[in-house]
Amino acid sequence: MWTPDRSNGQPIYQQIADDLERRISYGEFPPGSLLPSERKLAEQLGVNRSTVILAYAELRSLGIIESRSGSGTRVSKYKWGATPKHTPNWSRYAVGGSFLPNVPFLRRIREALGHNPSLIDFASGELEGDLSPVEEINSLLSGNHFNSYLGYDNPHGYTPLRQSLVSYLHKYRQIQTTESSILVTSGSQQSLYLITQCLLSPGDAVAIEDPSYCYSLPMFQSAGLRLFRLPVDSKGIKPEDIRALYKKHRIKMVFLNPNFQNPTGAVLDPERRARLLDLVSELGLPIVEDDPFSLTAYEETPPPPIKSIDTLGSVLYIGSFSKMAASGLRVGWLVAPHSVVERLADARQQMDFGLSVVPQKLASQFLNSDYFAPHLERLRLRLLYKRDLLIEAIRAELGDLVKFTVPQGGLHLWCKVKPEVNDGKLLEEAIRRGVIFVPGSVYGSDSGYVRFTYARAGEQQIRPGIMKFAAALRAVLG
Amino acid sequence: MWTPDRSNGQPIYQQIADDLERRISYGEFPPGSLLPSERKLAEQLGVNRSTVILAYAELRSLGIIESRSGSGTRVSKYKWGATPKHTPNWSRYAVGGSFLPNVPFLRRIREALGHNPSLIDFASGELEGDLSPVEEINSLLSGNHFNSYLGYDNPHGYTPLRQSLVSYLHKYRQIQTTESSILVTSGSQQSLYLITQCLLSPGDAVAIEDPSYCYSLPMFQSAGLRLFRLPVDSKGIKPEDIRALYKKHRIKMVFLNPNFQNPTGAVLDPERRARLLDLVSELGLPIVEDDPFSLTAYEETPPPPIKSIDTLGSVLYIGSFSKMAASGLRVGWLVAPHSVVERLADARQQMDFGLSVVPQKLASQFLNSDYFAPHLERLRLRLLYKRDLLIEAIRAELGDLVKFTVPQGGLHLWCKVKPEVNDGKLLEEAIRRGVIFVPGSVYGSDSGYVRFTYARAGEQQIRPGIMKFAAALRAVLG
Ligand SMILES: Cc1ncc(COP(=O)(O)O)c(C=O)c1O
Ligand SMILES: Cc1ncc(COP(=O)(O)O)c(C=O)c1O
Repeated sequence: MWTPDRSNGQPIYQQIADDLERRISYGEFPPGSLLPSERKLAEQLGVNRSTVILAYAELRSLGIIESRSGSGTRVSKYKWGATPKHTPNWSRYAVGGSFLPNVPFLRRIREALGHNPSLIDFASGELEGDLSPVEEINSLLSGNHFNSYLGYDNPHGYTPLRQSLVSYLHKYRQIQTTESSILVTSGSQQSLYLITQCLLSPGDAVAIEDPSYCYSLPMFQSAGLRLFRLPVDSKGIKPEDIRALYKKHRIKMVFLNPNFQNPTGAVLDPERRARLLDLVSELGLPIVEDDPFSLTAYEETPPPPIKSIDTLGSVLYIGSFSKMAASGLRVGWLVAPHSVVERLADARQQMDFGLSVVPQKLASQFLNSDYFAPHLERLRLRLLYKRDLLIEAIRAELGDLVKFTVPQGGLHLWCKVKPEVNDGKLLEEAIRRGVIFVPGSVYGSDSGYVRFTYARAGEQQIRPGIMKFAAALRAVLG
Repeated sequence: MWTPDRSNGQPIYQQIADDLERRISYGEFPPGSLLPSERKLAEQLGVNRSTVILAYAELRSLGIIESRSGSGTRVSKYKWGATPKHTPNWSRYAVGGSFLPNVPFLRRIREALGHNPSLIDFASGELEGDLSPVEEINSLLSGNHFNSYLGYDNPHGYTPLRQSLVSYLHKYRQIQTTESSILVTSGSQQSLYLITQCLLSPGDAVAIEDPSYCYSLPMFQSAGLRLFRLPVDSKGIKPEDIRALYKKHRIKMVFLNPNFQNPTGAVLDPERRARLLDLVSELGLPIVEDDPFSLTAYEETPPPPIKSIDTLGSVLYIGSFSKMAASGLRVGWLVAPHSVVERLADARQQMDFGLSVVPQKLASQFLNSDYFAPHLERLRLRLLYKRDLLIEAIRAELGDLVKFTVPQGGLHLWCKVKPEVNDGKLLEEAIRRGVIFVPGSVYGSDSGYVRFTYARAGEQQIRPGIMKFAAALRAVLG
């Protein structure tokens, strides 16, 4: 994004006015459309609000924009054509469709991170650069040769990748499957999207964990699903709760993240898993098992997935490279019965024509390479180290103010702030002080919970980040 | 996909039975699910139907599967658990959701190409391997180094790619735009999907060309849109038809593919473009301009897009690498006002969390490289040559049986078969003889039209392909 050049001699406000005029004339802001507020533009450009006020005044004097009190600043309509001509009312189009906008807190977090890259980031649920296999990927890339064909891919995904996944799933996740039972997706996110869009209908009831990553996804509401809660305790959800929801609401599917659950870190108890499978097979109810974190298990062997003991075929299994290698690869997979894979592959073709073969080939080579196992080993050790840094910092800086259970895998620490506190105020105060996290209400919990991700921030940033958070919390508590 | 090994000594039917047993026990076909018909499985495995009959008999004798007349062969339920337990009824789930399945002819074509890779392919609307910049991509890949960060990408797309696109659009498409007006997508397909899902609501009326690529996309119907037709003649659509549809049906958007339209090859007349823009600005009606083919123009300069003369911001512009470089990259772009880009980026994050950075970086480097212009030059010459090969073959083998207009760009030749002919019969007959094309009805036209793509088949295959088609046509005409 353009920012003013402080060394070029021209006044900053004039540079801003010129840039806006260019953006308006190129159609980024068509006639009649709303411009960013003075406050927001100042934040984006890293200038004082008064500079933006001058820039807007300049454009107003040229007749390019108009401000009306209460309705903000808009691009003038008359400057750009004779009266009867007009531009489509884009803002009305932009509220059409059945797609709900993202959760406000998540939009706020994205916006804040976009404007201020120096924020200490306990919010983004992903690995820092150092934890991703960047060198390994570079070295695979440089040996990567495409054959003569670079056309539309098989709608189920690149065949060699599906073959590599069959071995990977067998070796690392104790899942026996076949190539035709695998659909390669743009991360777990797209697997969830395809399931909610194609296997369920508006009005259907589904059960999700409480708290749950799923609450952060408006896709469930966009699909018109009715959501019912399965409370998560230290051993995960209770199978009996599913029976109750089934009786009462005829739930049609259950979404679980049983290993190192996001956000709580809970692992579903083995005995509960067995009962769960008995129960769902009695009810003929499918489970979606979202399993992105297992291979981060800090102990030697990660818990095997429910899918590995699913003899009756009740489980749709979802995996991804995002949390164990790199989220920017956008490679995930779904293991499902043939009829489901066919249906989802068909629908997905209509949405995007499938994934690029480039990252798929890379992912396949990485799985088969000698880099894979050592990468995982290193990832686990580093995550464990960072988890401990975070916990140490919290104990030192926050003491009794927050409570948590120590997670044995995953990227997140789920904390209860003891005194009563307002989520939104705490978030804004933290941003002001240079640190960011996700308020627990994003995951459907009550106010006063906080999710800290320790995978994203650098090791050196963890302590200062918690110090800033502690100051923010104390400020809000007054 | 597994196929029997004719040299391993074990009878083929036994190998098939063993493989099916494995696939069943791994959950590809859960208890109660339907197995492929004998005919279909024989086709998939390249064996006689009688061999599959033997394999199914073997599995039946073991109690693994059951056949009931009229309802096909299913995986036995009782083999796999005590009576009250059962698997979710996956086939019922697979018909849920609001996503319509693909057009039957297109499914049939995909299936036929999947089973028989030696079919001469006049159906797939894409470049053959030789026309894609494969060497260029390999050489860029080997120099491609990622920095330390491989995390979730900017929801609008990789910033350096959006910057490269700003220059590309200016230089090659005479479009002035800004980085923040660009959304990078998984090809034009995803741009269209986002527009239909997020800017329109079920029940909205839209206008599309007739015939049109859009008819091949059930996404329009899945979004609940009402489609109205704008007949295409040799100069494209007639603007007055839009006014009539607006009056009668209050259409909310117009979808056009004005340069080398798929399937007709028509180019929208310049004078009609000017009238079109006047009209839509009078009505405040947005146009979606889908422009994947322009840079294939066989003459020196491709017609500039409507977007380049759109001073009022009525046009959403869609581009893609698919037809000018490689469809397997899955990189496309949308140019739109700020508010629209924001809305679509937000929705798209919920669907797939954005594109992989790997192909985006590659695409950006390719655009900026010295490879790009020479690649386009070579592509144009080769496409022109292949077009002429096809036309020559058609004139020689089919004479008066088909009529067409010679296209000046794009990948397709649109033909009217003179005598009355049944689309489905002709397609099956052609497949049987080893050639495949797309029946015109897929694009919404009456029976008796055929789309031949000359970009995909090898030069050596064009004449033999048309000979097979001619034989098929003569067989159907009787
Ligand atoms: C539980 C869970 N599922 C799915 C996802 C989506 O990840 P991706 O699409 O990158 O695989 C996330 C990301 O935070 C997650 O935490
Ligand atoms: C007119 C038109 N638009 C869009 C597409 C989709 O192409 P892609 O998603 O590969 O860019 C095609 C492909 O055939 C097309 O012909």
